[in-house]
Amino acid sequence: MFSSQRTGDDADGYKATADRMWELAANQPGYLGMESVRGDDGFGLTVSYWESLKAIRNCRAQAEHKIAQAQSRASWYEKYKLRICLVQTEYSFERPAGRSRDSGVGS
Amino acid sequence: MFSSQRTGDDADGYKATADRMWELAANQPGYLGMESVRGDDGFGLTVSYWESLKAIRNCRAQAEHKIAQAQSRASWYEKYKLRICLVQTEYSFERPAGRSRDSGVGS
Repeated sequence: MFSSQRTGDDADGYKATADRMWELAANQPGYLGMESVRGDDGFGLTVSYWESLKAIRNCRAQAEHKIAQAQSRASWYEKYKLRICLVQTEYSFERPAGRSRDSGVGS
Repeated sequence: MFSSQRTGDDADGYKATADRMWELAANQPGYLGMESVRGDDGFGLTVSYWESLKAIRNCRAQAEHKIAQAQSRASWYEKYKLRICLVQTEYSFERPAGRSRDSGVGS
């Protein structure tokens, strides 16, 4: 889980590198998925999901990732936190197909 | 950690309820902090941090939270996932004050 505040500096191919890191991760063994949002104020949350700690370590150890990390500190981010977390419980909700919004409850 | 896709339906005080849930959480014992971002496409990530599983359970058991949860399913969200996670490792980076962006590296 990566919480970050961007500098607003897009120099040196920030977007291309971010896309490339995403692509690299998605092709790693043990990759399960990713979710990412960034607001207009430059604050963003990105969560990637993995089968194991080993899979996370392998991904972070890649040479291209190391280079991107250095660039991240040099120019792209004001600050960030990376948290490695273990999912303990998961609850899901999905609106049934065809069910209208904001209606049909109690009727 | 709450990943959600909004319906775009702001009926029945979505914003006021969201603000109220944030305020309620922030006043609970064991609350450590919160981060939240939502993109223009309605997809959002909200992470709240807690001292213990017990603190999370207490917060989720609140009557006001239960009512908001019902309303969430009735109208506000297309889908969501709530994941209870244990932070295992944390890495931080913060740009030193006064250090310019994208310069001074290698010079």
